[in-house]
Amino acid sequence: MDSTTKVLTFGEIMMRLSPPDHLRLEQATTMDVRYGGAEANVVVPANRIGDCALRSLSAYGVDVSRVVREGDRLGTYYFELGASVRPNGCVYDRKYSAMNLASRAVFDWDSILEGVEVFYVSGVTPAVSPEMAAACEEALAACRERSITTVCDLNYRGRLWSPERAREVMKRLLPLVDICISNDEDAEACLGISHGSGSLATGIEERDSYVQIAADVCERYGCKMVASIVRDIRSVEDSDWMSLIYADGQAHFSSVHHMHVLEGVAAGDAYGAGLIHALLHGFDLDRAGEYAIAASVLKLTVRGDSNLVSVDEIESVAKSGAALRVSR
Amino acid sequence: MDSTTKVLTFGEIMMRLSPPDHLRLEQATTMDVRYGGAEANVVVPANRIGDCALRSLSAYGVDVSRVVREGDRLGTYYFELGASVRPNGCVYDRKYSAMNLASRAVFDWDSILEGVEVFYVSGVTPAVSPEMAAACEEALAACRERSITTVCDLNYRGRLWSPERAREVMKRLLPLVDICISNDEDAEACLGISHGSGSLATGIEERDSYVQIAADVCERYGCKMVASIVRDIRSVEDSDWMSLIYADGQAHFSSVHHMHVLEGVAAGDAYGAGLIHALLHGFDLDRAGEYAIAASVLKLTVRGDSNLVSVDEIESVAKSGAALRVSR
Amino acid sequence: MDSTTKVLTFGEIMMRLSPPDHLRLEQATTMDVRYGGAEANVVVPANRIGDCALRSLSAYGVDVSRVVREGDRLGTYYFELGASVRPNGCVYDRKYSAMNLASRAVFDWDSILEGVEVFYVSGVTPAVSPEMAAACEEALAACRERSITTVCDLNYRGRLWSPERAREVMKRLLPLVDICISNDEDAEACLGISHGSGSLATGIEERDSYVQIAADVCERYGCKMVASIVRDIRSVEDSDWMSLIYADGQAHFSSVHHMHVLEGVAAGDAYGAGLIHALLHGFDLDRAGEYAIAASVLKLTVRGDSNLVSVDEIESVAKSGAALRVSR
Amino acid sequence: MDSTTKVLTFGEIMMRLSPPDHLRLEQATTMDVRYGGAEANVVVPANRIGDCALRSLSAYGVDVSRVVREGDRLGTYYFELGASVRPNGCVYDRKYSAMNLASRAVFDWDSILEGVEVFYVSGVTPAVSPEMAAACEEALAACRERSITTVCDLNYRGRLWSPERAREVMKRLLPLVDICISNDEDAEACLGISHGSGSLATGIEERDSYVQIAADVCERYGCKMVASIVRDIRSVEDSDWMSLIYADGQAHFSSVHHMHVLEGVAAGDAYGAGLIHALLHGFDLDRAGEYAIAASVLKLTVRGDSNLVSVDEIESVAKSGAALRVSR
Amino acid sequence: MDSTTKVLTFGEIMMRLSPPDHLRLEQATTMDVRYGGAEANVVVPANRIGDCALRSLSAYGVDVSRVVREGDRLGTYYFELGASVRPNGCVYDRKYSAMNLASRAVFDWDSILEGVEVFYVSGVTPAVSPEMAAACEEALAACRERSITTVCDLNYRGRLWSPERAREVMKRLLPLVDICISNDEDAEACLGISHGSGSLATGIEERDSYVQIAADVCERYGCKMVASIVRDIRSVEDSDWMSLIYADGQAHFSSVHHMHVLEGVAAGDAYGAGLIHALLHGFDLDRAGEYAIAASVLKLTVRGDSNLVSVDEIESVAKSGAALRVSR
Amino acid sequence: MDSTTKVLTFGEIMMRLSPPDHLRLEQATTMDVRYGGAEANVVVPANRIGDCALRSLSAYGVDVSRVVREGDRLGTYYFELGASVRPNGCVYDRKYSAMNLASRAVFDWDSILEGVEVFYVSGVTPAVSPEMAAACEEALAACRERSITTVCDLNYRGRLWSPERAREVMKRLLPLVDICISNDEDAEACLGISHGSGSLATGIEERDSYVQIAADVCERYGCKMVASIVRDIRSVEDSDWMSLIYADGQAHFSSVHHMHVLEGVAAGDAYGAGLIHALLHGFDLDRAGEYAIAASVLKLTVRGDSNLVSVDEIESVAKSGAALRVSR
Repeated sequence: MDSTTKVLTFGEIMMRLSPPDHLRLEQATTMDVRYGGAEANVVVPANRIGDCALRSLSAYGVDVSRVVREGDRLGTYYFELGASVRPNGCVYDRKYSAMNLASRAVFDWDSILEGVEVFYVSGVTPAVSPEMAAACEEALAACRERSITTVCDLNYRGRLWSPERAREVMKRLLPLVDICISNDEDAEACLGISHGSGSLATGIEERDSYVQIAADVCERYGCKMVASIVRDIRSVEDSDWMSLIYADGQAHFSSVHHMHVLEGVAAGDAYGAGLIHALLHGFDLDRAGEYAIAASVLKLTVRGDSNLVSVDEIESVAKSGAALRVSR
Repeated sequence: MDSTTKVLTFGEIMMRLSPPDHLRLEQATTMDVRYGGAEANVVVPANRIGDCALRSLSAYGVDVSRVVREGDRLGTYYFELGASVRPNGCVYDRKYSAMNLASRAVFDWDSILEGVEVFYVSGVTPAVSPEMAAACEEALAACRERSITTVCDLNYRGRLWSPERAREVMKRLLPLVDICISNDEDAEACLGISHGSGSLATGIEERDSYVQIAADVCERYGCKMVASIVRDIRSVEDSDWMSLIYADGQAHFSSVHHMHVLEGVAAGDAYGAGLIHALLHGFDLDRAGEYAIAASVLKLTVRGDSNLVSVDEIESVAKSGAALRVSR
Repeated sequence: MDSTTKVLTFGEIMMRLSPPDHLRLEQATTMDVRYGGAEANVVVPANRIGDCALRSLSAYGVDVSRVVREGDRLGTYYFELGASVRPNGCVYDRKYSAMNLASRAVFDWDSILEGVEVFYVSGVTPAVSPEMAAACEEALAACRERSITTVCDLNYRGRLWSPERAREVMKRLLPLVDICISNDEDAEACLGISHGSGSLATGIEERDSYVQIAADVCERYGCKMVASIVRDIRSVEDSDWMSLIYADGQAHFSSVHHMHVLEGVAAGDAYGAGLIHALLHGFDLDRAGEYAIAASVLKLTVRGDSNLVSVDEIESVAKSGAALRVSR
Repeated sequence: MDSTTKVLTFGEIMMRLSPPDHLRLEQATTMDVRYGGAEANVVVPANRIGDCALRSLSAYGVDVSRVVREGDRLGTYYFELGASVRPNGCVYDRKYSAMNLASRAVFDWDSILEGVEVFYVSGVTPAVSPEMAAACEEALAACRERSITTVCDLNYRGRLWSPERAREVMKRLLPLVDICISNDEDAEACLGISHGSGSLATGIEERDSYVQIAADVCERYGCKMVASIVRDIRSVEDSDWMSLIYADGQAHFSSVHHMHVLEGVAAGDAYGAGLIHALLHGFDLDRAGEYAIAASVLKLTVRGDSNLVSVDEIESVAKSGAALRVSR
Repeated sequence: MDSTTKVLTFGEIMMRLSPPDHLRLEQATTMDVRYGGAEANVVVPANRIGDCALRSLSAYGVDVSRVVREGDRLGTYYFELGASVRPNGCVYDRKYSAMNLASRAVFDWDSILEGVEVFYVSGVTPAVSPEMAAACEEALAACRERSITTVCDLNYRGRLWSPERAREVMKRLLPLVDICISNDEDAEACLGISHGSGSLATGIEERDSYVQIAADVCERYGCKMVASIVRDIRSVEDSDWMSLIYADGQAHFSSVHHMHVLEGVAAGDAYGAGLIHALLHGFDLDRAGEYAIAASVLKLTVRGDSNLVSVDEIESVAKSGAALRVSR
Repeated sequence: MDSTTKVLTFGEIMMRLSPPDHLRLEQATTMDVRYGGAEANVVVPANRIGDCALRSLSAYGVDVSRVVREGDRLGTYYFELGASVRPNGCVYDRKYSAMNLASRAVFDWDSILEGVEVFYVSGVTPAVSPEMAAACEEALAACRERSITTVCDLNYRGRLWSPERAREVMKRLLPLVDICISNDEDAEACLGISHGSGSLATGIEERDSYVQIAADVCERYGCKMVASIVRDIRSVEDSDWMSLIYADGQAHFSSVHHMHVLEGVAAGDAYGAGLIHALLHGFDLDRAGEYAIAASVLKLTVRGDSNLVSVDEIESVAKSGAALRVSR
C-alpha cells in the first residue's frame, strides 16, 4: 500500500493480541502482538506501549510527529481467528483508552490538514466516543472548507454503539462526505437504508440491491460516489468478493475473486486504501474498482491489520481478474 | 460444553503429543502437549505426569477427587495432523498404561455412581484391556439396577482390538445400553451389522443404510435410541456432516454442515456430549440432532481433544442450520 | 504450595503479558500470557478474558464459585524481564479494571469468611482504589470479630499510590492485623518507620535494622508477629535471601540462600504463603522461617506469578539450608 | 522415498529460509531453516553452514562421502508461502554460491558413476553456471557410455537464465537423456516446443497438448520416454493433478487427484523420484504413472523440500486413485 | 565428538521431552523433543517413533544398520531444567520399553564386535533389566576374549535399581572392565567403596578421596585405569570441574574449569567419549585428562544429550586450561 | 540511543540469523532474524531482503532516503550465542554483498555530509573491500575540510582482513580522525601499538597499558581523544567493564560494572554511540565516560545489535555507578 502524506486518516490505533495457530483464547499461553490501524492522526498514551504502537507505524514510513501523547492506556483487543463454521472472535478492551477519553480539542485541524488532499475516516472513529464523533464532524467540515476530498467508510460496529446512535451521528457526517464506502449491513445500521435480503451469503446474487443503496445514499446525502464490497460468504475461509463503484448514476462492478481466506480482517480498510490510491492516480472507475478489490482480497491473504502488499502485487491480481496467478 | 456432575464418563485420559504446523513426526523438534479426554473416572499414575493430566481436567472444572492414582505410566499417543490426501496419523504408546494394567476392582461403582443420571462409555474403554471390558460390564449393570441412563459410543479402534474380540465384548455390553452411538464402520466391526457400501465418501447419499443399522441395533439389543454421524469425507479438510437419531422406529436427520476441518479428532465424543446435553435439557429429537451435530462440527474447528465451545456457540450453529455465521 | 480452603486471600487477579526470551517490550512480536495472583476473592469481568483468569485458578484447584463477575475489563500488566544491570520492567494497564471500579458492597464478608481460619491481604489491594481500601478495613474488622488470623503484607507499590496515601490507609488497617509482612522499603513507605540505610544491596549486613522495624511495628500497632525477607541484591540475577520472623520480642533469622534468579517476581507472595503454611502446620518459628524463605527462593526459579512447587521441594530446600541440592 | 545408492542425482543443495505461519518476509522475526535438495553430488563450502546441509542429508541416510567441500558460501533462498490469490514468493540469494563458482573439474565422473544405474539431473543444475552446464553435459555423456539410464527434468527457472540460454544448453543435453520430465511451460522455455494455451488453469482439459509435446520431444531428441505432471491450478491451495507418461508412441494418463495444497514446492522432484522408483521396481507404465503422481501430490502435504513419506503411504494414495483415504 | 566405528557403545536410546524456557512440567504446553544417547547398539521398536530415534543417530553419521527393531515402545523421559536451588527434574517413562523387555539373545556379539577396538557401556544399561545386565556381562566377556578395550562408566541411577542390586551386578562386570569411570556417589552405590564426605559441594577440596577410591577399584577388580570427574557443585548453574585419571598408581589431575552451566546433563558421557578419543589418539594421561574434562564441560554449554562440539573446540578449551576463551 | 540526524554513520547493514535458546547452529530448525547496524549510509540490494533491512532502520526513525540500492545480496551472518567456556560463534556470509562489491563512486560525500556534525565509522567498513577503504578515506578527508568531527572505532575483525592490511589502511585513515576508539587487541592489530599482556582477562588490572596505548595513538596520529573499553572477561557471561577516555594527556576512568551478560555483541558500537551523545550534549569527560560505559553495558542486556534502551535508563545506570538498580 502506498502511503503518501497527502492522505490523512483519522482513527484509533490499538494493540491486537491474538492466539497463534487457530487456538481459542482459552487455550492460548502466548499471544501474537500487533498494532492495528495505520492512522497518522491518533491519541496514544505517553508510555512504552504507546511507543510500541508508534514504532509499528514508523516501520511503514508513516510520519508520527503529530500524534497526540496523552491518556492512560492504549486500546486493546483480542482477535481469535475462527475456522469453518466457527466465526472469528473479538473481545474488546478499548474502553477508557486514550482515544476514548480524549477531548476533541486536542486536534488542531488547521495545522493537521495542512497539505492534505484526501481525508479518510471510518465509522469506527465517531463510535469511539461522543467527543470523537464531534471531532469527526469538525474535521469533515474543515475539509469541505478547504476542498479536501473526504472519504468515509460507514463500517458499523455493533459493540461500540447502537444503530440508533450510529444513525444520529452518521446523518450529520454524511453530508460532508464525498465518497462513502458502505459494505454489508452498514447502510441499514448507520443510515436506515435497506434493500435486498441482507444475507451475507448472497451478496453477489443480490448485487442490484447494492446499487439501489448507493443511489439512495447519493440522493439523500449528496455524496459523489458510493463504493461497496459485494460478497458471498460461505464460511470463515470460503467467499467470493467483487467491487461496486457507483457514481454519476452508473454502477461499475469488478470481476469476482473466489477466495480461500487466511485472515478475514481489515479487508474493508484495504479496499478503501486501494480506492484512494486508484483515484489519486487517475484510474477510471472500472480500473479503480479492479484495483480496490484486488487490494482488498490480497489483505485476506496477509496476517494482521496492515495490507503488506506491493502495488505490483495488487496490479497483478487486478489485471488477471480472478484468474490464475502463480509465482514462477 | 456444560459439564454437570450428573454425567459420568468412564475412559482413559492420555497425553497427546503432536507436531506443530502440520509437520510430520519425523520433522518435529517440538511437540504440542495436551491431555485427551474429559473423563472423571480414570486411573492415573501417582507421578507428575499424572498430576499434569488432572490439572488439565481441573481447569475445565471437572471434579478429580475420585480418580484412582496407581500404575507406572500415563498412556501417550502421537497425533500427526494430515493434509489433503495424507490422512491424520496416530502412533499409540498406551500399552502398559495405568489404565491398561488396572484391575476392575479399583472401581467401587456403588460410590462412583452416587447421584449420577447419565453414564457414558466409549468402545475404547473395553478395548483397553479385558479387565476394563469387565469393568464396563459391571458399571453398565450397576447403572441398569439404578435406572441410570447408559450411553455407549461403539467407537471401534482397530489398533486396540480385532473385530472378533470387539464383537465378543460389545455383544455383552449392548443389552445394558440405552443409547447407542454408532458411526462409520463401528456397527460392522463391533456388532457385525452392515448395510450400504461402507464408503466414507458417500455416507449422506447412503443415509438410509444408517437407518437400517440403527433399526437392527435396537431390535437385537433392545437399545432405545441409536445415534449416528453420517458423513461424506472427501479429504482431510473437506467433508459434510449430518446427524441421525433413530428412536421409536423413527429416523430424525439433521441439516448437513459443509466443513473445512481444522482438526478432525474427537468429533464423535463432542457429538455424544452434545446429545447428552440435549436429552438432559429435554430437547425434542429433531432439535437434539441439530444440537449434537452442531457441537460435533464445532469440535472440528478447535485444536485438541476437548470441545472448547460455549452452549451459545453451539446453539448459534445449530439454529442457522448449515447457513452462514459470521461474527460481527 | 498447599491451598486449603481455610486460607482466604483478597486481591486482584490480572493478566500478565511478558515478552519471551528476555526481549524488551519494543522487540516483542509475541507475549507470554499468564494470570497473576491466586486470590479466590476477586472481581472479574463477565467476558472471555475473565473466564480465562478463572480457568487459571481452577487448574490449581482454587474454588472460584464466589468470584464477583462485573465490570468492563481485567487489569493487565506488561512484565519485562531484566538482565544484570537492566532492572525488570513493568507497565501497568490496570486502571479502570473491574476491581479498580468495584464497590466495597459487592463483598458479603459474612458469607465469604464462613469457615475461614486465615485471611491474607497484601498492600496492593487497598492501593487499587479507596473502595478497596475500605473493603480491606471491613474485611479485617470482620475477621477480628470472628478471631480469624489476619496476615497483611505491606507490599508498597509506588505506581499505585503515594507514601502519604499509603500511610493514611495502612495505619487504619494495621491495628487489625495479627501478622505483618514487611520487606524492603515497605515499612518506610507505608508506615514511616525507618532504620538502616535502606540499601537493597546490604540488607543482610544491616539485618538488625529489620529487627528494630519489626519491634516498632509490634509496639505501635499491636501486631503479634512481623516477618521480613532480608536481602542483598547485587543484580537482577544475583542476590542473597534470608528470613526474619519477629515475635514475642525475639528475632528468628533463617539460613541465607545465595540465588541465581530466573524470574524475580512474586517471591514476597510465596514467602507469605510459606509462612501461613508453616504456622497452620504448627512449625516452630525457626522452622517456619526456614520453610517460608525456602518457598520464597524457590519462586525465584519458576516462571510466572504462581509458586508451582511442591511441599516436598520446599522442605528439601529448607532442610539443607543453603547447601547443595541436586536431583539424582 | 527410497534412496538406493544406485540412483545418483546431480544438483545444488541450498539453505531455505521461510517465514512461519504464512507471514510475509517483511513480517518475519524468525525463519524456519531447512536444507533443500537430496542430491548426493554437490559442492558445499567447508564451513559450519555446509556441515549443516550435509547433516540434513545424513539424517535421510544419504551417503555424503563424495561431496566436494570448497567455496565461500552455500546458496540460500527465501521461500514465502502464499495464500489463495497471493502466489508463493521466492527471493534467491544463490549467486556466488560454492556450486555457482565451482569448476566442472571438481567432478570426477569416472569414480562418481561407479555402480550407478540411474542418473538424475534437473534443469536447475545447468542453469547455475556455464561450468555446471558443461558438467551436466560431461556427466550425461559419461552415462551414455556406461549405459546408465539418464533422467532430466527440464524444470525451467526464469530467474536463473533466459529461454534463449536455456534452449542453447538444453538442446545439447537432451540427446543424451533417456527420460525427459517436462511440466508446465518447461518445453516452451527450454526447447521452444509449444502446444495448447499454456494456461496453468486448464492443463487437464488440454491434456492432449501434453501428448503432442511429448511426441515432439521424443522425435526431435530421441528420448525414450517423456513424463509430465498435468495440472489445473486454481489458487495456491486448490488444484488438480494427473500424470502423463509417454513412451513408444503411447500416452498413459493417471487418475486425477484433487488437492488442498499445504506447501506447493518440490512436487516435481517428488514426481521424478516416484517415477524412478517405479521404473527401478519394474512397474508397468500405468502403475508407474499412478505411483509417481501419488508421490508428487503427497509432497504437496508435507513441509519442506524433501518428500518425507513412506512407500506404503504412496502406494495407499496410488491404489485408491483419487478416492478417499482416511487413517483409522 | 568424533565417532569412529571402532568404538562400540551399548545402551538405550530414549526420547527426551523437555519443557522449553525453564518451565516446569506442569506449565508446559509444548515440549522440546530430542533423542538421548548415541549408542549404535540398541533395541528400538519398529514404529515411526523408533524411526525418529534412528534418524537422530544417522544425522551424526552413526551406522544404524545393526539396530534390533522389536518391542512396543521407545523409552521416554521428561527432563525439566532446574534453576539455582531448584534441581533438574526427571520423570522416567522407560518401563516396558523395547530395551527393558528385550532378551539378551537379540545381541549376536560375534558379529557385533567385529572390528571393534573399544567397547563402552554405562551402568545404566545393566540397570535396565536383568536381561540387559546379563547381556552386558556376555558382551564384556566376549571383549576380553578378543582383547577389545572395555570402558564402563558406573553411572548409578537410583530410580532404576537399588545399591544392593547394583553392587551385585557391578561386582560381576567390573573384573571384565579395563577402564572404570566413577563419579560422585557411584563408587559407593555400585561398589560399596567410600572415602571422603560424599558432599557434591566439596569434591575438589576432597580430591584425595577420589584417588583412594580409584586405588581401591584397581586393586579389587583389576581395572587398569579409573577416571573420575571431581566437582564442586554450588547450584544448578554454578560449579567447578576437574578430571582425575588414575593409572599405574599415579593420579593425574587436570585444570579446574569454573562453569556457568546451561544444561547439566550427559557431561559424564561426554567425559567418557573424550577420554576414549584421547586414548585412541595416544595422548599421554595428563593431556587425556585435559581433553576429557574439556569435552565434558563443553557439554554443559550445549542443549540436549549429545555433545555437539568439534575436536577443535575441545582442544581450544583444553589448551587454555580454565582461562579465557572468546571468539574473535 | 538518541539518533539525531547530525550524526552520520558509515557502514554495512547485514541480516543476522541466530539460533534461538542457546542452540548451536547445527541444532537450529528456526533462526531469529534481525538486521544489524543502524547505519544510514549504506548500500543495500534492491530486493525484498534489502527492503526488510531498511524497514528495521525506519522503525527506529532513521532516515533511509539516501541509501544506495544496488547489488545482488545483503550481507548475512550467523550468530551463535555461546555459554560459559563456549565462546560466541560467528559464521560470515558477507562476501559478494552489495557493500562488498560497491564502488566508492556511489557515495556523493558533498550531499551526504550536508548538515552533519559528527561522522562515525568503524574499522569494519574499510575492511569490507579496498573500495570501501578508499571511500572511508575520501569521507574522512571531506569531513576534515568541513570541520566535521570524525570518530573511528578501530574494531579489528580478523576474518575480514589481516593485521598487515589493516595497518596499511588504518595508518592512512587515522590522521583524519579526531576521536579514536580502541578496544582489546585493536591497537595492536590495526596500528601495531602494544602495551600490557593483551589478556582479555586482566584488562582492568592492566589499565595503565591502555593509557599508554592512547598516548601513543594521540602522539603518532594527532587524534584529540582516544576512548577504550577496559575489560576483565572471565567467561561468556561474566565480565567487568570500565571506560577510559584519554584527552589532553589526561586519563579519565569510569566506574567498573560487574556484568552477567545476556548477549555480548555490539557493546562497542553502543559505547561509541554513548560517547558521541555525551560529547554532543557537552558532558565533561568524567561524565561522558560514565554515560558511554553505561550505554555499553546496557547493550549487554539486550538481544540483537541495536541498543534498545532509553537515555533515562542509561543515566540511571551511569548515575548509580556499578551499584544496585532494581525497578520498583
